[in-house]
Amino acid sequence: MQTPWEYRYAHRTKSMGSSVIRELLKLTEQPDIISFAGGLPAPEVFPVQKFQEACNIVLEKYGAQALQYSTTEGYRPLREMIARHASRYAVQLTADNILITSGSQQALDFIGRLFINRGDHIVVESPTYLGALQAWNAYGAQYIAVRADEHGMVIDELEEALRKGPKFIYVLPNFQNPSGCTLSLERRKKLVELADKYGVPIVEDDPYGQLRYEGEHLPPVVALDSQYRGSNGSHYTGNVIYLSTFSKLLAPGLRLAWMIAPPEVIRRFVMAKQAADLHTASFNQYVAYEVSKGGFLDEHVKLIRAVYKERRDVMLEMMEEMFPPEVRWTRPQGGMFLWGIMPLGIDAAEVLKRAVERKVAFVPGAAFHPNGGGENTMRLNFSYCSPDTIREGITRLGTLLTELLHHNGKS
Amino acid sequence: MQTPWEYRYAHRTKSMGSSVIRELLKLTEQPDIISFAGGLPAPEVFPVQKFQEACNIVLEKYGAQALQYSTTEGYRPLREMIARHASRYAVQLTADNILITSGSQQALDFIGRLFINRGDHIVVESPTYLGALQAWNAYGAQYIAVRADEHGMVIDELEEALRKGPKFIYVLPNFQNPSGCTLSLERRKKLVELADKYGVPIVEDDPYGQLRYEGEHLPPVVALDSQYRGSNGSHYTGNVIYLSTFSKLLAPGLRLAWMIAPPEVIRRFVMAKQAADLHTASFNQYVAYEVSKGGFLDEHVKLIRAVYKERRDVMLEMMEEMFPPEVRWTRPQGGMFLWGIMPLGIDAAEVLKRAVERKVAFVPGAAFHPNGGGENTMRLNFSYCSPDTIREGITRLGTLLTELLHHNGKS
Repeated sequence: MQTPWEYRYAHRTKSMGSSVIRELLKLTEQPDIISFAGGLPAPEVFPVQKFQEACNIVLEKYGAQALQYSTTEGYRPLREMIARHASRYAVQLTADNILITSGSQQALDFIGRLFINRGDHIVVESPTYLGALQAWNAYGAQYIAVRADEHGMVIDELEEALRKGPKFIYVLPNFQNPSGCTLSLERRKKLVELADKYGVPIVEDDPYGQLRYEGEHLPPVVALDSQYRGSNGSHYTGNVIYLSTFSKLLAPGLRLAWMIAPPEVIRRFVMAKQAADLHTASFNQYVAYEVSKGGFLDEHVKLIRAVYKERRDVMLEMMEEMFPPEVRWTRPQGGMFLWGIMPLGIDAAEVLKRAVERKVAFVPGAAFHPNGGGENTMRLNFSYCSPDTIREGITRLGTLLTELLHHNGKS
Repeated sequence: MQTPWEYRYAHRTKSMGSSVIRELLKLTEQPDIISFAGGLPAPEVFPVQKFQEACNIVLEKYGAQALQYSTTEGYRPLREMIARHASRYAVQLTADNILITSGSQQALDFIGRLFINRGDHIVVESPTYLGALQAWNAYGAQYIAVRADEHGMVIDELEEALRKGPKFIYVLPNFQNPSGCTLSLERRKKLVELADKYGVPIVEDDPYGQLRYEGEHLPPVVALDSQYRGSNGSHYTGNVIYLSTFSKLLAPGLRLAWMIAPPEVIRRFVMAKQAADLHTASFNQYVAYEVSKGGFLDEHVKLIRAVYKERRDVMLEMMEEMFPPEVRWTRPQGGMFLWGIMPLGIDAAEVLKRAVERKVAFVPGAAFHPNGGGENTMRLNFSYCSPDTIREGITRLGTLLTELLHHNGKS
């Protein structure tokens, strides 16, 4: 007889849904749609030839060793390189502070696995990164949403949230996905102080920190936390778990990211990773190290910044020209996304349906709000499409919005 | 103030422990120890040059596409190749039956995530694979251990276990890790029938199926289940979730494995994988496909079989010569491990301490028994060490065992 599989699944599968983002990415697979919906880096900036050289060097120099099982913590030279790099920002780190993960999504999953009991509350910005919500929903997380404005999380509202006893605070300080906003220096310092006051850890998700196109680099929250506590020997032992990734600096198809945390926390994550996938692919770690070492990353990121800055500028200029005055939007200083806000009462999901008919796509903003709201918002990606495609896509979208708002005003 | 991290961890971390196997692998990192403890393939058989060619072809032919984000299900040509390959064994499959995972350990973790509620019972062989226990302990699994003999799980004892309402049956039919035993054809058929009778799914873990050095190839349980049900269109829609891996056929450092299941179950696993790591590294999948296509795997596995067969034979011959008559062991027809059974009352963990002093290591068998027992057993790996090293290591171990049993007999 047939197996009634649906009666076999565990409770937690009830809170696991297919990602809105992944489903939307399927729209981008239609070649005739101009999609601002995905979160893809521009493939034109992937250093393909450098990868090819690195693969050859790794296989000639290390051979079978790069193809064998390796340690759960990650390839030590890569971890040491990351530690040296982070030390620039005045965080004292060693390789013992670092775990290599199979992309940042895995780090988010491990954070859920290690910290979240069903019903635990997590402080998030509203809007916040959908992938984090998706990872933590499976562990039964509840969310305390703190409003974010153009300078990031509104810190005046954070203290009230902290008094509710959350498990941790989740923040994307640089060019946030989805809003594009950056947490100001003053708010970063206040965040560190408040988190310390209430003894609540911070998870700092920083995939885009290097992708700044204007303005001053701001220190990561982990660095401010380290300074706030003063020196503590050679290891960082503070209150922040910091995430970043090679996906935006080199290429996402390697699935390589890293986590910085106190060594006692890293040891726990190592146990989680042993059970989850033993270790991240050895070969990828050798290749990423070979590509990155000797200062290549610092040079390469300049190219990425130049390409993305142009695209951001084109998108902003075109929006200025084509979007109706009732629509507002953010002006990110970096990253890959900007955020559009239509008048209240306009449903972005409905707008998307019409937009897809015009062969242009974006992500409606509601899904980024864990506790509802934001139906009138949209996320636009500017990293993936060429400037000409951005011009055409924003023209289509602006024309549609003008028609809709005009019509809406009359009806 | 310092963050009291230990008060932040979720309940489930209490059932997450550091892997005995991973800790033991650290022994193998001392260069002067002869280790039969790990489960490493022989690096000499990794097709390094073929990998190098494949990396170059992939980067020249697909370039940035192989480095970009890709679908959660996995690279379609690779999934189609796996489907074609499995169809040899008379299972009707399409790519919709297949999910690419980041190693088999990830598949085991996803099985726990999808199926195991805290306290659910899983039927396992005793002894069984430690990595599965480690993955499922984190989800709060309990185990119903069914005895295994030299022909695998004792099926007469399975029905009693099935009447206890387990979530699924976990079985490693070929050259089992740790025992080296193979489930007989008769028992495979009976397993399929009994699982169907009670409506309980089977998880078939088959990392070594291709590594047979003597005897007839036996059909995988998934194929017998498919035949038992009769044709059901082009998709497999039966009662078995089948796991296998490129780790033993190509190289484990790629972290590439696959899962075969009914499409409705694969869709659930895809949701789990979206939240867990988005997808397995695109580049690795392109490279594995490029290496494997055109029949290379079939040729390459002959080399692996020849190398491992010699090592198995050397180990068995040396054990015959050096081990005291009180010790018995299995004679695996394939795979990477054999299993030693010392007289009751001898503690393999104590023997290991003495063995490490003599610079030889193995894994004590107790950890492979989820409900206790097996203190007098040991797992020996024969794939990793060269024949000469095996000779020396078994000589050391045999000498020690002879001394211990002699001494033990007298005291």
